[in-house]
Amino acid sequence: MTQALRHDAMRARNLALVLGAVGARGSVTRAALAEMTGLTKTTVSKLVGDLIEGGLVVETGTVRDGERGRPGVEIRISGQRVAALGLEINVDYLAVCVVDLARTVRLRRTQAVDNRAAPPVDVIARLGDLASAVVDEAVEKGLRVVGGVLAVPGPVDMTSGVVHNAPNLGWRDVPLASLLRFPFPVRVENEANLAALGELWFGSGLPDFLHVSGEIGIGAGLVVRGRLFRGAHGFAGELGHVVVSPAGPPCRCGGRGCLEQYAGQDALLTAARAATSVRAATSVRPAADTPPAGASRNVPAGIPHEDAAESAGAAHEGPAEAAGAARETPPPEMLLPAQQGVSWVLSRLREGDENARAACERAAWALGVALSSAVNLVDPDAIVLGGIYAPLFPWIGHMVADTLKARLGQMRGAVPPVVVSRLGAEAAALGAAGQVIEQVMADPAALLHT
Amino acid sequence: MTQALRHDAMRARNLALVLGAVGARGSVTRAALAEMTGLTKTTVSKLVGDLIEGGLVVETGTVRDGERGRPGVEIRISGQRVAALGLEINVDYLAVCVVDLARTVRLRRTQAVDNRAAPPVDVIARLGDLASAVVDEAVEKGLRVVGGVLAVPGPVDMTSGVVHNAPNLGWRDVPLASLLRFPFPVRVENEANLAALGELWFGSGLPDFLHVSGEIGIGAGLVVRGRLFRGAHGFAGELGHVVVSPAGPPCRCGGRGCLEQYAGQDALLTAARAATSVRAATSVRPAADTPPAGASRNVPAGIPHEDAAESAGAAHEGPAEAAGAARETPPPEMLLPAQQGVSWVLSRLREGDENARAACERAAWALGVALSSAVNLVDPDAIVLGGIYAPLFPWIGHMVADTLKARLGQMRGAVPPVVVSRLGAEAAALGAAGQVIEQVMADPAALLHT
Ligand SMILES: [Zn+2]
Ligand SMILES: [Zn+2]
Repeated sequence: MTQALRHDAMRARNLALVLGAVGARGSVTRAALAEMTGLTKTTVSKLVGDLIEGGLVVETGTVRDGERGRPGVEIRISGQRVAALGLEINVDYLAVCVVDLARTVRLRRTQAVDNRAAPPVDVIARLGDLASAVVDEAVEKGLRVVGGVLAVPGPVDMTSGVVHNAPNLGWRDVPLASLLRFPFPVRVENEANLAALGELWFGSGLPDFLHVSGEIGIGAGLVVRGRLFRGAHGFAGELGHVVVSPAGPPCRCGGRGCLEQYAGQDALLTAARAATSVRAATSVRPAADTPPAGASRNVPAGIPHEDAAESAGAAHEGPAEAAGAARETPPPEMLLPAQQGVSWVLSRLREGDENARAACERAAWALGVALSSAVNLVDPDAIVLGGIYAPLFPWIGHMVADTLKARLGQMRGAVPPVVVSRLGAEAAALGAAGQVIEQVMADPAALLHT
Repeated sequence: MTQALRHDAMRARNLALVLGAVGARGSVTRAALAEMTGLTKTTVSKLVGDLIEGGLVVETGTVRDGERGRPGVEIRISGQRVAALGLEINVDYLAVCVVDLARTVRLRRTQAVDNRAAPPVDVIARLGDLASAVVDEAVEKGLRVVGGVLAVPGPVDMTSGVVHNAPNLGWRDVPLASLLRFPFPVRVENEANLAALGELWFGSGLPDFLHVSGEIGIGAGLVVRGRLFRGAHGFAGELGHVVVSPAGPPCRCGGRGCLEQYAGQDALLTAARAATSVRAATSVRPAADTPPAGASRNVPAGIPHEDAAESAGAAHEGPAEAAGAARETPPPEMLLPAQQGVSWVLSRLREGDENARAACERAAWALGVALSSAVNLVDPDAIVLGGIYAPLFPWIGHMVADTLKARLGQMRGAVPPVVVSRLGAEAAALGAAGQVIEQVMADPAALLHT
């Protein structure tokens, strides 16, 4: 290492040290920074000058007594210049947000869109349009977007940016990172991991939890002492494919009886719709005569046939079956567009619809079963229900907790509490932007050099 | 902090630094140690002197050229003095071992004993006798046992040493640490965690794996980048209570259909015996007429009634049922003592017994189901089967791997390989002793002061 390289490395380390100290304290004088970091005041002043020039910190302008009575201008992280882009491609929506370096969410957009049928390039083009508009708005506010992270619903090879398999999008081995065209670096990561980080940085503030990210698919992110647990290859947290019932309905992952087949959004909607149509249509066939296998012949609109078959097959399992709820899927023409989202289930629940309630009960029971396996394996301190489970929480939270308690209470002194995420579906995009912020905080020199 | 305290803290830190450097290199000169640690040669010589006096390192006596051609006496970790005691209480055996600081296993004893009926104080007394004999032998070899760790089959509160619940021992809230009487400190920890560490330090040498510790109960320990993952409260890795079938047989943990009810040693033996007796007794009742519920009425010797009922109930589930294997438990007088251990199953398997094979197939299938949930959640790089699954590996390994591949292969590029532990049932006691060694290496000053 040459003298110059060594100097650069030391400067980079010290810039991160000073910026980290500013972030930890909120606002702090140069004198206090020198004390905190062990650097000389001259060095601190030089570094702070560089950070101000780069727009990473600002002087607050207020002068007050320092720690030892000396007056000093205080420094804090600047929210005016450096910003991060959070992006998410999910099965039925796109989301983007801009977060500034002071961790304030400045812009957010979501777009409801069915990405299941679309080839990756089309989805990326649509996401690019949405992101461009948001970045333009950010620039108008004087922000400089320095990087982005894109959340996708499936395991991602973190080094290559290849999405190995996003079964609910129908994507296999998509080199997503290489298809992106942004004027700043954008990494790709698993949606469930990022949603957990979003919850950590922008949500409850808990340091230890398992965040459940329910959409069409179901993922989870485990945070232990403020750090995301990724597993050996970054593929940890695939809660949606934890086995609820080993001979249950086949799943797109190749397994059978996965949680997703009981509590994923499609499974939940299919169950709720089927029950509703039986009740509404006063039975072309009497419910009691309908063999469950026959129910899968009718395919609801907008859902591929295999999916409907699986979901109808799912009705064989779980407590709703025991409760005697009859199931039949309506023909496509009977479905309203509003029935395709979780908001439809919510409106049914608010009306006191018994069948929507039964569908939620079945989903909550399955979540409880899968989460009892998860608690046994990874021992989280709390369970945070996010994604679609956030709005559904009043109807499912208690039942999930009860199932957990019934299965875990005897073995463990305390069963982890089941709480609701304040972020819901926005968690992943926020976590994505938050990761860029973390990276800037860890290596501000990289930004100042560009 | 006073000057003296600061000096002590620095000396402690430097002793650990030097001892760690010796451990990492195997053998090394004082000059090379000074280079590695950045300490002066005078300081290194003083520290090495202290470590030699404490019996932690020795001079090899051989003089050879140092790194830069200077001759020097090499130092290495001493296996002659400091030693650690590993202890294990399991459901049907006790184990103790002594490992020296150079990580050589010096003594090992196991005692087959049924601890299920015994109160904790009696079990501890028996363990104490076994340990005393081994420690006496170690002393005769010139070793000084400086500490111990005790492995127990259940979650342990690491700070209080209370075993909250070891369902297979019938223990609840046993303040185990406070009941132990040893002339050196002994900590208590979960058996599955320690078995994984045993595998890490004395087994395959893999840095990333999920170790499955099958005995009467089934636990697992996850090692990620050479470190044990403990979860928020140290209760992670309870693989035995991962759900295989949600409405399956009740488990002692309070749940239903847990892995233990399909693949634990008792479940495996009950299944193998039942099948054997049906074949051997040429049917008092024809197998086809026997309702599975009726099978649980006959309770095999040495197994509490609830357990047999659960295990027989378990026959409702899994592929063996589909294969048409008839099951009936024999009356107690028909059972030989040798049928109570896994060695009996092994002898049946070696004779080519079809029913023992079917029992193993069912256990392997259940292991595959539970492990597919585990892989989805924690993403291990490899799965190491230990405990009773080590000797059973030739009969179950392939089936476990096949089940995993069927359930995970489509979603993940590479399914983690399923390999056999070289340690088997000794892993936990070895991991326990290894933890003491780790502690000595991390803080040798604590030992030198006593
Ligand atoms: Zn699946
Ligand atoms: Zn259990």
